[in-house]
Amino acid sequence: MNLKTMPREYRIRFLPIDRTIPAEEGENLLEIAMKAGVHINASCGGRGACGKCRVRIADGSVESSPHSSLSEKDEAIGFRLACSSFIKGDAIVEIPLESQVDRSILRRSAVMSDTDAGAIDRSLLCQYGCEALVGRYNLRLPRPDVQDNVSDAARLMRCLAPRIGCEEPLVSLGVMRDLGSGLRETDWNITVNVATTGQMREITRIARGDREKDHYAIAVDVGTTTIAAQLIQCDNGKEPSDNSCDDARRGRIILASSSDYNGQISYGEDVISRIMYARKPKGLKKLQDVVVSTINRLIGEIVEEAGIDPADISHIVAAGNTTMMHLLYGIDPTHIMLAPYTPLATAFAPVVPRDIGLDPGEHARLYAIPGVASYVGGDIVSGVTLSGMTESSEVSLFMDIGTNGEIVLGNSQWLLCASCSAGPAFEGGGIQHGMRAAPGAIEKVRVNPVTLEPMILTIGRTKPLGICGSGLIDLVAELFLAGVIDRNGKFSTDRQTERIRKGASGREYVLCFAAQTRIERDIVLTEIDLDNLMRTKAAVYAGCKVLLENGGLAFTDLAMVIIAGGFGHSIDVEKAIAIGLLPELPVERFRFLGNASLGGARIAAASRAFFERTSEVAGSMTNIELSNNTQFMDEFMAALFLPHTDEKAFPGVMKEVKTGNEDRL
Amino acid sequence: MNLKTMPREYRIRFLPIDRTIPAEEGENLLEIAMKAGVHINASCGGRGACGKCRVRIADGSVESSPHSSLSEKDEAIGFRLACSSFIKGDAIVEIPLESQVDRSILRRSAVMSDTDAGAIDRSLLCQYGCEALVGRYNLRLPRPDVQDNVSDAARLMRCLAPRIGCEEPLVSLGVMRDLGSGLRETDWNITVNVATTGQMREITRIARGDREKDHYAIAVDVGTTTIAAQLIQCDNGKEPSDNSCDDARRGRIILASSSDYNGQISYGEDVISRIMYARKPKGLKKLQDVVVSTINRLIGEIVEEAGIDPADISHIVAAGNTTMMHLLYGIDPTHIMLAPYTPLATAFAPVVPRDIGLDPGEHARLYAIPGVASYVGGDIVSGVTLSGMTESSEVSLFMDIGTNGEIVLGNSQWLLCASCSAGPAFEGGGIQHGMRAAPGAIEKVRVNPVTLEPMILTIGRTKPLGICGSGLIDLVAELFLAGVIDRNGKFSTDRQTERIRKGASGREYVLCFAAQTRIERDIVLTEIDLDNLMRTKAAVYAGCKVLLENGGLAFTDLAMVIIAGGFGHSIDVEKAIAIGLLPELPVERFRFLGNASLGGARIAAASRAFFERTSEVAGSMTNIELSNNTQFMDEFMAALFLPHTDEKAFPGVMKEVKTGNEDRL
Repeated sequence: MNLKTMPREYRIRFLPIDRTIPAEEGENLLEIAMKAGVHINASCGGRGACGKCRVRIADGSVESSPHSSLSEKDEAIGFRLACSSFIKGDAIVEIPLESQVDRSILRRSAVMSDTDAGAIDRSLLCQYGCEALVGRYNLRLPRPDVQDNVSDAARLMRCLAPRIGCEEPLVSLGVMRDLGSGLRETDWNITVNVATTGQMREITRIARGDREKDHYAIAVDVGTTTIAAQLIQCDNGKEPSDNSCDDARRGRIILASSSDYNGQISYGEDVISRIMYARKPKGLKKLQDVVVSTINRLIGEIVEEAGIDPADISHIVAAGNTTMMHLLYGIDPTHIMLAPYTPLATAFAPVVPRDIGLDPGEHARLYAIPGVASYVGGDIVSGVTLSGMTESSEVSLFMDIGTNGEIVLGNSQWLLCASCSAGPAFEGGGIQHGMRAAPGAIEKVRVNPVTLEPMILTIGRTKPLGICGSGLIDLVAELFLAGVIDRNGKFSTDRQTERIRKGASGREYVLCFAAQTRIERDIVLTEIDLDNLMRTKAAVYAGCKVLLENGGLAFTDLAMVIIAGGFGHSIDVEKAIAIGLLPELPVERFRFLGNASLGGARIAAASRAFFERTSEVAGSMTNIELSNNTQFMDEFMAALFLPHTDEKAFPGVMKEVKTGNEDRL
Repeated sequence: MNLKTMPREYRIRFLPIDRTIPAEEGENLLEIAMKAGVHINASCGGRGACGKCRVRIADGSVESSPHSSLSEKDEAIGFRLACSSFIKGDAIVEIPLESQVDRSILRRSAVMSDTDAGAIDRSLLCQYGCEALVGRYNLRLPRPDVQDNVSDAARLMRCLAPRIGCEEPLVSLGVMRDLGSGLRETDWNITVNVATTGQMREITRIARGDREKDHYAIAVDVGTTTIAAQLIQCDNGKEPSDNSCDDARRGRIILASSSDYNGQISYGEDVISRIMYARKPKGLKKLQDVVVSTINRLIGEIVEEAGIDPADISHIVAAGNTTMMHLLYGIDPTHIMLAPYTPLATAFAPVVPRDIGLDPGEHARLYAIPGVASYVGGDIVSGVTLSGMTESSEVSLFMDIGTNGEIVLGNSQWLLCASCSAGPAFEGGGIQHGMRAAPGAIEKVRVNPVTLEPMILTIGRTKPLGICGSGLIDLVAELFLAGVIDRNGKFSTDRQTERIRKGASGREYVLCFAAQTRIERDIVLTEIDLDNLMRTKAAVYAGCKVLLENGGLAFTDLAMVIIAGGFGHSIDVEKAIAIGLLPELPVERFRFLGNASLGGARIAAASRAFFERTSEVAGSMTNIELSNNTQFMDEFMAALFLPHTDEKAFPGVMKEVKTGNEDRL
């Protein structure tokens, strides 16, 4: 991987425990401390309000905002608020005495940063070539004379065929009507768009003069909750003799990005409720209109941001789960939710975007990354292809954990996939103070195992509103490791603190007291929450186990565990292992891909060969239906413990639990 | 060739000259006499008005209408009017004394009758297979269950792929939207339309239940003057193991036919005037609307005649000259008439007929037989492919003689083509009493070489209105052979008859006196008419000569001369040879194909492989531009004689001329 473009990295040494970890320029000190497992009190979520996260910069370069809780004298001797301090160079940071207890060390070095995305793009485009799904070619045709008076169309083909490697591309009627004047107005100098339709190529547009560089595409991830779009710079690929691929692809292909909630949210939070709505009269059309209008709005934003002519968008590549794609194309999704769960289609032929209401011109084409089954959609295929696991002989596991946990196991030879109804716990569903990963959501939690006092970070560093998936995992893991929660997922009765109390439905842990929250109520974790989380994590783990057993493998055989999805991106691997959501493997085997669905759509937009590869990947996936699968039910029951019934599968976690218990005795 | 379906044939013996020729059941006696070269006076054009065509049925079976000019006694002893008598069995026919002079014998045995069309169709469909361009397949899919819950589309493909030999046909959005309910409403029993688009297949329609037999197409010949359409019964071809092709194809594939003038005639008679009109504001759109409306009317007629559901028309195949196709698709034809004569296109991708205004449904597809150049269009390629000349190692010459004479020379290895501006003489242009082949046109003429009295037949057997192309050829040939016209195309001064006289522009021959015509003026042939006819026939002959010389061949090397076109169909080969329009070759080498453009479109509609063959044929034709071609000009000048400057090329004609002259001396 090309890491040259990564920001400068500094070394931050925490005292008095003397732990040094690397950090990037501009990184927030509270987040670094959290990564390092260095506990700092921070009850306001990191927004600089409570003034509790005091640290002293003993040496080095840190940029901090002033804060009323720090006296001039404090500041003079180096005291700062960690949440308001950002790294400018190497630094030595002293943690005040009350926060010196900590427990873990950094194990997330293998995790991929956002900065790596450009490097992945470049690497994939070098591998697959950057001939776009719709190519754009400038052609300067020889003028006709009596000796050479073939038709305008044949003259065009003669020049175009060697560029695109296709003798007889189709020519749409609109192009045919525009061709004669187009050629003659520009003295036979035109730029044509050539779309890919299955095995065929089709000329979809004639532009006057050389417009080869004005060549853009839209990648869009059509999520149930969120829709993300990117404007992509395309080119026509290199001549085979040109070896300068690395140089050519150095620039980023993303010109602008935007995302928004899927407008369909008003009609139901999950795919099942959307399908229910689609079955109402005019429901399907309504849902289609709404998602189309969300996408159109995003396209408008990124086109405006980049300042391009929207007519130069030559294609759109969409990836989404099977239900989302049915709704986007206006196709009845009913049977996705009815046994035996047959979708109407998992692959969609290219269409003119306007045929479904999308804004780009008549000449543009909409492509969809193909899916596999009702609950393993094109978003997963997109991510799996992006991950590269299908190009290696080593076996990897791909996981996208949301309301459904979609998992894919395999290598370049075979692929098994499944969807395990993980339940909505990670999206905030079924959790008393659960919420989606939105501003105000507690996304990171550390709990001092002695005092049981929490340290929290919220998204947007605002006053807490609730707990999102990654915060929930952190919290449960920390409480489990601290001995507050037992292996059955119940609160222990032998730890005495004001934060553990009897609530309306059994015992609960108070993560934030009302005064510190935006909701002005205590934010708590209840035993019902714990039950729901246990079921969710057990379903994912059991699904993985079933795939592995079908492949005759164990977790330890995995070369890589690839975690995709916005949620996955913020998971703390160690915590997820501690609760048994992820298998206990060395952290360097875990890799975070972020929005891999969008990433795959992006590369597919820029590379026709990659798009074609997604079809092969979809075609080679064998879907294992877990509903009514007895093997799955057995594995699910076995996983309803922390971390799991099978202690031997989690030796590190069990050792930590025992050590912690011994320490407390 | 399978001739089993031809009508019964009888033998008609003419006395006293004792000439026997075969005739079909129901054939008209006047026409048989004309074929046999037996002269019978008939000045009313064969409509039973003049009562001059008296013959006596000496023996045998003839069905005649009574006529006032025949007394009871006449009828009792067997007198009938030839024009009103139809063959019911073998017969012996006595010709009254005044009409005993005759001159030629039947030489048209090689001419193909309409009845053979069905046999040609069967033979070609056996050769190319009868898998239609848009196939229709009934599929009974297995119901899904949890073990087999692939998408509806994938389930469909699984059943369809082996039938069509294509793994991944495209599925249009409309079909996708209809698929789920279509499958479930019929217990997984549906019929799908599968269109051919270049190398791709595309599913364009889902019908409920087994509708495989309701499978129709339209073949249409888009002529400058006339548009002809046929409704075709399609099927899906045979399994490769099925050898019963002959049996299966015994039935006719034509369910109904209709034709009409191209509505564009009001905007100009020939392609150049149409192009001129198309260049006016909105002219192109107007011309497109008009031709589309003509075709829609014809489709309406044949669909109604056959009593089929128009929704079951799965495709249309159109053949036409390059200008007609530009106008049909609404594409600017300007450069067809401007040097260097580049059409915009000669091949057209399949489109939805509605995109250009044609009536068939959204699921239907419109295909066009590809052309070669501005003046060698898809109509010619269609006919050439139909003729089979491209499948033989022997060299043949294909001619379509209308306003333009399009000619094609070659075999399975190579093809040369050219268009020679024949001028409009054969369509009635530039001829004082010339007219198109329409009711009232004199289409056949015989002239008694002694009395110079004519015998004429009009189309529709009505009073004459004028002379069409075939009548003109007959008339000039007869007058030339009778010594009335000399080799320079001037009237001889040494034949004395009231029919040859001095007219407004030189000498002229009166074919019909005013009293016998519908126009109430004499119908005459002038020396200016002769000049125009000479130029027309010279251009065609010269074009053929240039192609032959380019191929290093002579006329005598030709295995076959194939004459296509409605006009060609009514040409008397012997007469056409006499004036030097056709080369002097044994008559059995001439073959008439009738409307070969329509015939090719018909076979293409029924056979995808034939359609694909037309592309290969178009691609293998080398167009030789005759405008500004000096070789052509030389040959043209040499051909401006009757029959030609080179007497040795027409030994039979020259011998007949000399014999006639000697007889008269």
